[in-house]
Amino acid sequence: MTVRLRLDLAYDGGGYAGWARQPEQRTVQGVLEEALARILRTDVGLTAAGRTDAGVHATGQVVHVDVPPDAWARLESTLLRRLNGVLPTDVRVRDLAAAPPGFDARFSALLRRYAYRVTDAPYGADPLRRTDTLAWPRPLDLTALRAASAGLLGEHDYAAYCRRREGATTVRRLLRLDWMRDADGVLVATAEADAFCHSMVRSLVGALLAVGDGRRPPDWPAGLLRLAERADTVVVAPPFGLTLVHVAYPPDADLAARAAETRRLRASAAGVPGPAEARGPAGVRGPAGVRNGA
Amino acid sequence: MTVRLRLDLAYDGGGYAGWARQPEQRTVQGVLEEALARILRTDVGLTAAGRTDAGVHATGQVVHVDVPPDAWARLESTLLRRLNGVLPTDVRVRDLAAAPPGFDARFSALLRRYAYRVTDAPYGADPLRRTDTLAWPRPLDLTALRAASAGLLGEHDYAAYCRRREGATTVRRLLRLDWMRDADGVLVATAEADAFCHSMVRSLVGALLAVGDGRRPPDWPAGLLRLAERADTVVVAPPFGLTLVHVAYPPDADLAARAAETRRLRASAAGVPGPAEARGPAGVRGPAGVRNGA
Repeated sequence: MTVRLRLDLAYDGGGYAGWARQPEQRTVQGVLEEALARILRTDVGLTAAGRTDAGVHATGQVVHVDVPPDAWARLESTLLRRLNGVLPTDVRVRDLAAAPPGFDARFSALLRRYAYRVTDAPYGADPLRRTDTLAWPRPLDLTALRAASAGLLGEHDYAAYCRRREGATTVRRLLRLDWMRDADGVLVATAEADAFCHSMVRSLVGALLAVGDGRRPPDWPAGLLRLAERADTVVVAPPFGLTLVHVAYPPDADLAARAAETRRLRASAAGVPGPAEARGPAGVRGPAGVRNGA
Repeated sequence: MTVRLRLDLAYDGGGYAGWARQPEQRTVQGVLEEALARILRTDVGLTAAGRTDAGVHATGQVVHVDVPPDAWARLESTLLRRLNGVLPTDVRVRDLAAAPPGFDARFSALLRRYAYRVTDAPYGADPLRRTDTLAWPRPLDLTALRAASAGLLGEHDYAAYCRRREGATTVRRLLRLDWMRDADGVLVATAEADAFCHSMVRSLVGALLAVGDGRRPPDWPAGLLRLAERADTVVVAPPFGLTLVHVAYPPDADLAARAAETRRLRASAAGVPGPAEARGPAGVRGPAGVRNGA
């Protein structure tokens, strides 16, 4: 028996080769697993809601870890403080608690929300925000960005915007994709989906920026949804503008059912599922056959 | 004859030994003067509204520089872009234009506004804002911070909060000192004065944090105004939480008069001026006998 903990994380992705542990690379998973092993005096494995790419940041990453009950009993009141004491300042555990029954950071998740920051100020990015803001060299038209984004919403095969993986579907349901200018004039895109395929948010943003600066018409990004493979005309936006800001879960009572449903869909969708097959009982599509990258 | 330019700057102070040029040190003034010399092909000297310390940031620094008229005529439309192309990304020229007659970035200024960011979240600073946010290890009481700050407003001898300089007054008029929690829960102090003496904002913040976390009573910071010398009980807050956010100037027609008045007060106040002597004709006190540091 183990106790499952939920950890809420924030990190500056600039110093990391992404979330997922890799040999000889500094990764968020690697740094956090080592810190936990040092405090718990036993090896543990972490599972994340979003497997962020190299350079991608997080303010709302969610992960789970299973720990021995005696270690948890001993450390319950001090683990958050001790962990943050051991971790470097570019990764923080914002919250840590025993997870409700049935919780799985990856498979229980209902949706992931990402934000992408880009400035079109002639002088570039504010120096204090240059680590998470792309500087775009041409003016961007908010109206055009919004119009083009609206055409990308809904359930589609996003093959044009995904790095193809063998045996995995590229059908997704994009629930939100909108833009605003914040108080400093920075354009912030917000994207929500049950799950994203690899580099999908950055590919969507890359296509939209070509509309925003007038090089492509507003209907161009949606037109690419007809393609059955990655569009080589889409320039993937750089990772450092992207932040995983939120992961949503169902009420506690539905966590186990949601996780089971996601796993079932994932198994059945190893081929290419139709939209009906990929839809869950409550009309919520599971992240089928995918890594939840972005 | 030269043409005077006004430049509006932003910088991440983390990589700089402050504003002011020093031998063998990377300073904002040094980096900017070198960039200008490279483009103008002549040496120029910069004058800043706020001589920020090592590690202190700016989003609203204002400086002036006098350049040869032929160079300005040749470069007027391209200088901003070329300058930002040459400069490192930790310093940006947000705006650049010929200054109105009588403008002096330092002596025409009416007030300087600084912001100090500090978080009392148990996990520390958001990794993406750790370069400009102090992590405080104890909870901070906003009501206590506000009450203590109110007692520091007005015209006083801030000797307790200033690094003493021979022959310079430490009398200042503090126009604003308030606190809010932003949307992320970060405490932001805003301080405004016609001018600040050296390390004054960081000393005020240091004293207030001792009130905010309950170690000192709310009337303690104001009580220190009775001291004639620096209070060794005040811990100066670290520089990286501090940002020069704004410098205010009078209407163009009053720029020259304001600069002349400031210079006159500065000369007459090499001793210790009384409040009446230090007050300008419009009731605005000049930054007398001071470097405009913080």
